Amino acid sequence: MDIKRIAVVTSGGDAPGMNAAIRATVEQGIHHGIDVYGVYNGFKGLVEGDFRLLTTSDVHHNIRRGGTFLYSARFPEFSKEEYQRRAVEQLNNHNIDALIVIGGDGSFQGALALTKLGFPAIGIPATIDNDIPGTEYTIGFDSAVSVALDAIDKISDTAASHNRTFVVEVMGRHAGDIAIWAGVAAGADAILIPEESFRMQSIVRRIAAGRNRGKDYSLIVLAEGVSDVNSFVEEYKQYSPDESIRGVTLSHIQRGGTPSARDRVFATLMGARAVDLIIQGQSAIYLGIKQERLAVFDIVKTLKKTEHAVRQDLFQLNINLTDRGI
Amino acid sequence: MDIKRIAVVTSGGDAPGMNAAIRATVEQGIHHGIDVYGVYNGFKGLVEGDFRLLTTSDVHHNIRRGGTFLYSARFPEFSKEEYQRRAVEQLNNHNIDALIVIGGDGSFQGALALTKLGFPAIGIPATIDNDIPGTEYTIGFDSAVSVALDAIDKISDTAASHNRTFVVEVMGRHAGDIAIWAGVAAGADAILIPEESFRMQSIVRRIAAGRNRGKDYSLIVLAEGVSDVNSFVEEYKQYSPDESIRGVTLSHIQRGGTPSARDRVFATLMGARAVDLIIQGQSAIYLGIKQERLAVFDIVKTLKKTEHAVRQDLFQLNINLTDRGI
Amino acid sequence: MDIKRIAVVTSGGDAPGMNAAIRATVEQGIHHGIDVYGVYNGFKGLVEGDFRLLTTSDVHHNIRRGGTFLYSARFPEFSKEEYQRRAVEQLNNHNIDALIVIGGDGSFQGALALTKLGFPAIGIPATIDNDIPGTEYTIGFDSAVSVALDAIDKISDTAASHNRTFVVEVMGRHAGDIAIWAGVAAGADAILIPEESFRMQSIVRRIAAGRNRGKDYSLIVLAEGVSDVNSFVEEYKQYSPDESIRGVTLSHIQRGGTPSARDRVFATLMGARAVDLIIQGQSAIYLGIKQERLAVFDIVKTLKKTEHAVRQDLFQLNINLTDRGI
Amino acid sequence: MDIKRIAVVTSGGDAPGMNAAIRATVEQGIHHGIDVYGVYNGFKGLVEGDFRLLTTSDVHHNIRRGGTFLYSARFPEFSKEEYQRRAVEQLNNHNIDALIVIGGDGSFQGALALTKLGFPAIGIPATIDNDIPGTEYTIGFDSAVSVALDAIDKISDTAASHNRTFVVEVMGRHAGDIAIWAGVAAGADAILIPEESFRMQSIVRRIAAGRNRGKDYSLIVLAEGVSDVNSFVEEYKQYSPDESIRGVTLSHIQRGGTPSARDRVFATLMGARAVDLIIQGQSAIYLGIKQERLAVFDIVKTLKKTEHAVRQDLFQLNINLTDRGI
Repeated sequence: MDIKRIAVVTSGGDAPGMNAAIRATVEQGIHHGIDVYGVYNGFKGLVEGDFRLLTTSDVHHNIRRGGTFLYSARFPEFSKEEYQRRAVEQLNNHNIDALIVIGGDGSFQGALALTKLGFPAIGIPATIDNDIPGTEYTIGFDSAVSVALDAIDKISDTAASHNRTFVVEVMGRHAGDIAIWAGVAAGADAILIPEESFRMQSIVRRIAAGRNRGKDYSLIVLAEGVSDVNSFVEEYKQYSPDESIRGVTLSHIQRGGTPSARDRVFATLMGARAVDLIIQGQSAIYLGIKQERLAVFDIVKTLKKTEHAVRQDLFQLNINLTDRGI
Repeated sequence: MDIKRIAVVTSGGDAPGMNAAIRATVEQGIHHGIDVYGVYNGFKGLVEGDFRLLTTSDVHHNIRRGGTFLYSARFPEFSKEEYQRRAVEQLNNHNIDALIVIGGDGSFQGALALTKLGFPAIGIPATIDNDIPGTEYTIGFDSAVSVALDAIDKISDTAASHNRTFVVEVMGRHAGDIAIWAGVAAGADAILIPEESFRMQSIVRRIAAGRNRGKDYSLIVLAEGVSDVNSFVEEYKQYSPDESIRGVTLSHIQRGGTPSARDRVFATLMGARAVDLIIQGQSAIYLGIKQERLAVFDIVKTLKKTEHAVRQDLFQLNINLTDRGI
Repeated sequence: MDIKRIAVVTSGGDAPGMNAAIRATVEQGIHHGIDVYGVYNGFKGLVEGDFRLLTTSDVHHNIRRGGTFLYSARFPEFSKEEYQRRAVEQLNNHNIDALIVIGGDGSFQGALALTKLGFPAIGIPATIDNDIPGTEYTIGFDSAVSVALDAIDKISDTAASHNRTFVVEVMGRHAGDIAIWAGVAAGADAILIPEESFRMQSIVRRIAAGRNRGKDYSLIVLAEGVSDVNSFVEEYKQYSPDESIRGVTLSHIQRGGTPSARDRVFATLMGARAVDLIIQGQSAIYLGIKQERLAVFDIVKTLKKTEHAVRQDLFQLNINLTDRGI
Repeated sequence: MDIKRIAVVTSGGDAPGMNAAIRATVEQGIHHGIDVYGVYNGFKGLVEGDFRLLTTSDVHHNIRRGGTFLYSARFPEFSKEEYQRRAVEQLNNHNIDALIVIGGDGSFQGALALTKLGFPAIGIPATIDNDIPGTEYTIGFDSAVSVALDAIDKISDTAASHNRTFVVEVMGRHAGDIAIWAGVAAGADAILIPEESFRMQSIVRRIAAGRNRGKDYSLIVLAEGVSDVNSFVEEYKQYSPDESIRGVTLSHIQRGGTPSARDRVFATLMGARAVDLIIQGQSAIYLGIKQERLAVFDIVKTLKKTEHAVRQDLFQLNINLTDRGI
């Protein structure tokens, strides 16, 4: 098939670096003589035909900007075939030949649905949670870790001034990746993730061991998938009633800010290759990064059969560095 | 009196720039041939005699570091004369001639108490809340506003991607200063401070007016002295049930981070002048910044008779820029 | 006169916060029912009639963005009356009633020229150099100091690792303001500004004195108005041939980056008040900040009769803290 | 051999994350019941016996700090066996069983020399240049890219305001890695690295093509290994005399700043594993990261037989996105 027009849509939670991916599809499109249309407002915009031709001047500043300038929106109706068919109609009416979906695994299901209706679509993984099977990296993860670490560093200043213990709740939905990376980087005394159970006494003991070794503050990084921070602090206090402890939730700041170099570079790599792969006639796939190189995954096979796993080496590293046994 | 030894103590909540003030007392002390001792752990350390001679190598890196490397600690017992007398004993035993107290107005009361017992003490205002009477500036305020603004900017990225309204709760205790400065700087649709009442319908109307003018997200900055953010969001929803709105609390990150240039410069200015004033035999005073210049205030007179006031011009400015009447 | 349309132009070197000032003119215009037109490309655009109506959606994101989205351009021809007359024609043809010029003192001369031709114009001071007479503050200065300080902090890390002396050249044209503020904030051993002479031996001595007191690196902040950094380092080496010394020029990064809170707040205050003053029929004035409050200056009288002065108290403070005599 | 005492030394140019690696050796040492001594001032300190026992309180704050708190120093004498023997004597006199060398490939030669004299030593790669054979990652590289990108983003603000072309010279010695990563992330029009030749006309053409597509500024990222920026700009101007073009050198700021999450995590991983490998009796090796996992390399074999290669996929990506042929 001769590709003349591609559309690109961002869907699901926004992630820093999405704009870099969009920009790369536009510039790589121009490189190949292809028009790239932006779909505004996610799958909702797809169904409603909210398409606009994107040019260099639309995208060249946005590489530095967090979020997605195409907007994103929740649109659960898209799981119904009726809406999927309307999307295909809109795409056909605009003479668009293929679609690039930038988002999480839920968004890839949308891409897959279109493919089953005969419209070629491929995915680019973007979510701060890093929780997409197959790929070791998702757009936004590195920026989110960076923002979380910066916040934890700031909290460490005030924690040390008062010899306090802080519990910092970070994002990640059901995945512990942000907690592990930000926690190891911050030198946390303990990192709690949904993938691994823990005993509160053991955490209390590690904190105490750190203080005995000379730490003037303590730090627990808690993934949101484990518990909310207030409940955690309440339970912790039962085991260590005299400790000065505070809980903090970082929440939405982790989604924002200018994307990191790594997020922009890999977003650019995947955005450009997505256009190449469409030209080659590929469909029902998504891109990713494996062992630091571009990789391609089958949506059907990979999403079903693979599970995302956290870095056990890093999780264990933190335990070794801080757990001093009895 | 011939001053040979001075002690410096940080007390109350920590604030970025305290270390710059400590460093300035040490270097200005050296300039005048005076030894400067650091009191560790606030007024508790004062009572317990936790004093150490400070040198250039103790302080010269710390100018860049948030918090206080002398540590701070709550010590309500210091309101009792018994503890104040013990502090004076400790200071005398260490042959210290005068004390510089870096902290908030509560800490200045401690300084005043020592003065009444015959021991010279003067204060340097440091609190992120900017709520000390007389002075227009307190150490840490500029850094806290900067951190709050950076966080709000990050939240704005994600807010815009989803066309959401965010309510961001900032610190400030009973003062609206952080909210006003961060709110005006962020282009907030509304700023809510404890010093001024508001009607929820009016806030809802301003948000709607902003959207009608073309804003793709909305922003309310809420001072902690007004309400906690969750209660506020609940009440707001009653007036605008269909709006996508989220609440975020910035909390302790606002106390941390490397101090801003302004905080370091004024902390340095006040730290150095505090030493000069002690040499001149001053006592029961605190320093401050008025109309951008160093100013001196009487602890007794100013703390009692003056009230801190927020910048009405800036508060009104925000209303003018965003309120479009009916 | 009944004001219906205002134009706003940015001119001269760009400065972070210019966009916040533009945004404020637009929103305050809407508040008063006035249309605000952006003049693109500085005075050149004024002469060529490159005007566009600005709306909320043009400006509300730009409050966070450095530089000027209206662009700036050098246009020395504007000193000729012929071009000034063409500008007035363009403004009249577009039914514009008054002009706000955001820029430095050179730009204010352009505003004054228009006023003399009968077209009302007022100025808002924006330059990172802080060198405009009358006002104690110009838009962009606080951000530039902040960027310079951040860079010097980074350099301090590597300087300390190798026990080096670094000379950091900062911007400021003929003014030493950036050097003084960044230098005091960084704890520099010496600050060299065009307003004050110095003896090289004295600088070398201060560096040595700092090392003797325990500093593990040394720092000289050099205003560009004094000397270029390479010549300075060469001369320094003649007096201290064995010292490991490096020169660095910060250059254009100081103009960029997201504007600081202070720059956005005062830019917003001045932008909004400029619209108010135009409505009141004012002309041939410029706004400023004096003693932290909004102030108004006569272009003719102030620019001619007043000279900008650096903060002698801060300059002297640095000398006291670091100069240890013989 | 039963390991009781390890020493750790930083050598060569400092890099952000070195402190995180040191901290990990100390904590992992404590985990295994091993004392870890810091060698101050690089190989010079090794020869002079400048050793101090490191504790948790020495290292736990330093994880956030750039540079190396153990200091580094050039010491070319260490290539002579005489000095190497003295170092072994010092190590033996202090009852130290093995040495960890954190630095670049030059530093690894020092480690190898000690091994040949019978003293076990292993290396951890740390240099912002990322130019060590075998490993795909060196400590400090990610932070340096991040600082370079932040600076380029700031320059982009001012470049866009004046429609200018900026040439930004970044570090990297003989390697183009920083240029490639920062350049792709910044959306540069051209990236020039020592590994690849280029024709100036082609660069000029790419800049022009970008402007024709709608860019309001242009950006060339120049690795220091190619040319100094002033010579480059001069040559460029011969081909495009009317273009407004400026050159900027980022220089030493790239070595500083708080280390990135990635640098701290991998530094921590390598620091801890270095201790484990020493316990296992390993020597004459260095650690690294390959395909995002910990890897081990033989100093003799790898340094001689392998050459560091830049990411050709990313270099080519940038060309595809910006080169529009004739």
